[in-house]
Amino acid sequence: MATISDVAKLAGLSVSTVSRVINDSPHVSEKKRNSVKSAMERLGYVPLPAARQLRGSKTNTMAVTIPRIVNPFFSYLVDAIEQKLDEAGYSTLIVQTFSKAEEELTALNLLKNQQVDGVILCSLENTWSIISDYCKYGKIILVNEYLKDVHVPIVRADQYDGFYKATNFLFDEGYSKIAYATGRKSITIMEKEANFDADRFAGFQDSLSEHKLGLNHDWLFTNAHTAEDGKNIFKMIMALDNKPDVIIAGSDEVAMGITQEAEEQKVKVPKQLGVLGVDDQPVSANLRIPLTTIRQPVNEMGQKAAETMLHLMSGESVPKVQICKLKIIKRASA
Amino acid sequence: MATISDVAKLAGLSVSTVSRVINDSPHVSEKKRNSVKSAMERLGYVPLPAARQLRGSKTNTMAVTIPRIVNPFFSYLVDAIEQKLDEAGYSTLIVQTFSKAEEELTALNLLKNQQVDGVILCSLENTWSIISDYCKYGKIILVNEYLKDVHVPIVRADQYDGFYKATNFLFDEGYSKIAYATGRKSITIMEKEANFDADRFAGFQDSLSEHKLGLNHDWLFTNAHTAEDGKNIFKMIMALDNKPDVIIAGSDEVAMGITQEAEEQKVKVPKQLGVLGVDDQPVSANLRIPLTTIRQPVNEMGQKAAETMLHLMSGESVPKVQICKLKIIKRASA
Repeated sequence: MATISDVAKLAGLSVSTVSRVINDSPHVSEKKRNSVKSAMERLGYVPLPAARQLRGSKTNTMAVTIPRIVNPFFSYLVDAIEQKLDEAGYSTLIVQTFSKAEEELTALNLLKNQQVDGVILCSLENTWSIISDYCKYGKIILVNEYLKDVHVPIVRADQYDGFYKATNFLFDEGYSKIAYATGRKSITIMEKEANFDADRFAGFQDSLSEHKLGLNHDWLFTNAHTAEDGKNIFKMIMALDNKPDVIIAGSDEVAMGITQEAEEQKVKVPKQLGVLGVDDQPVSANLRIPLTTIRQPVNEMGQKAAETMLHLMSGESVPKVQICKLKIIKRASA
Repeated sequence: MATISDVAKLAGLSVSTVSRVINDSPHVSEKKRNSVKSAMERLGYVPLPAARQLRGSKTNTMAVTIPRIVNPFFSYLVDAIEQKLDEAGYSTLIVQTFSKAEEELTALNLLKNQQVDGVILCSLENTWSIISDYCKYGKIILVNEYLKDVHVPIVRADQYDGFYKATNFLFDEGYSKIAYATGRKSITIMEKEANFDADRFAGFQDSLSEHKLGLNHDWLFTNAHTAEDGKNIFKMIMALDNKPDVIIAGSDEVAMGITQEAEEQKVKVPKQLGVLGVDDQPVSANLRIPLTTIRQPVNEMGQKAAETMLHLMSGESVPKVQICKLKIIKRASA
């Protein structure tokens, strides 16, 4: 393909003159401008907006990362973000990470290569030392996922509080043998506000402790993402001698899988096994067994995230952390 | 921000020498290479991969456009595409168009600016004359949406056949007053295979004609996208003197809204009003009123689309049109 040097050669002018024409600089004669333009046309040379951005102009494009687009929590979150950015004249590129570090770098490299003005991370796959290296190239914020002591703005939900209250709610409803599922590969016990999962688990644990109950390792399920995973969890529960009487499913997706498999095996929900979802998807109220669930403030988080990014772009100061509340929605499943 | 000229000036070398260093060309002395590198570092100059791509290398990135990410048909379609591209080492950028022409241009401009190697259009918002202009910058294919007489590969479903058979199915089930909803702003009657919507409507119409029935304009509903739209359609139907006995809802999203509002108003589905969805979302079988629906071959189309794009990238020939079949899934709603 043609390069800027090819254009200069064909036009009989210097590379810097060609560059001045591309960048609409003054002090180029009409004649030279026309020579450059006709050379560009003949060679099919495409001036790169990215090159122009080196001069400080903006792309008016944002990248948003999410783990999986087929999880409605994330499709609605990214939709709320994008609607707000759209109002402000920004386009949005969505990057699925599939929980892989290299896919997250795809989005961060868009920032490095100045193809986007900012990255909204709704997933967190690399260590912070790797991500923070990219802050010099543009704006980065964390949404939903979070870490302690990072120097970028965070918009998140109060996972500790939500899970603490949800566990108390299950005790109030008469359950006492509470299983717990998470999408993570393992469960890490950490100080409060260290991250999303640790806080969810800490809220759950603190409620158990207050009810003088310890942890039953047979009732912990990791790597749970999809309805299929939920079906497998149900089968594992049925194979236990000492079965839980309720499960906090980690997501509505997983909760749906558990209730479907329970129906399949003629196990009554919530009588024989209670199921507590997390998210409150639009469809969760209209299932055959409507889900009792922990509602995540998807729209609020998405809108706050977009507003925060827009404020950063216009040089305004923004809060270090913005925290939205989770809410228990009582229906039929628990 | 620093430009290549600034780097050249600081290094005391020509722009073309700097360019040779950036592009790892031979015939540059180690000394000059080091001067350029240290000047780049001091100025914070970022060499653009895009500029290097002008020399013919690839981005290994694809763009996929979809109208709305919150419609599970599209989130599953893009997921099927991306999984296949991922296996082949490609990253994917997802662009929501919100059915707006300018958002589609965002994706096409990624191709023009050589930020992606190809664009998979699962939406179609601009006229073909505008889109076809971008074919010179890289590969474009159409998926799900289609037009006649275009010179890019198409992967689509047999909408005419699916809707013709689905309408016949409704007659076989004893319905005769069939309403029809679509996401489009208007219904266009066109020759066969002209486009997605015209074919759906033609299949519906041909079945009506064979049953010696004409078109009832009161039973046509346009602009129907969401469950909310479905609720409104139900209200409009209830306000009619001459009510349809079944509706082809255009999507499972809209079908869910219709059945929800029917439950709300104590109208029995399918006895008082049958509802036929389109898509067969994963959740459609597990609703309080499981949807009878026209299943779209989402995974098959997504995989074929990705394979077609990958074949194009490696210079192989591909079929002009690949057509997947729709299938009627009988459950409770019709």
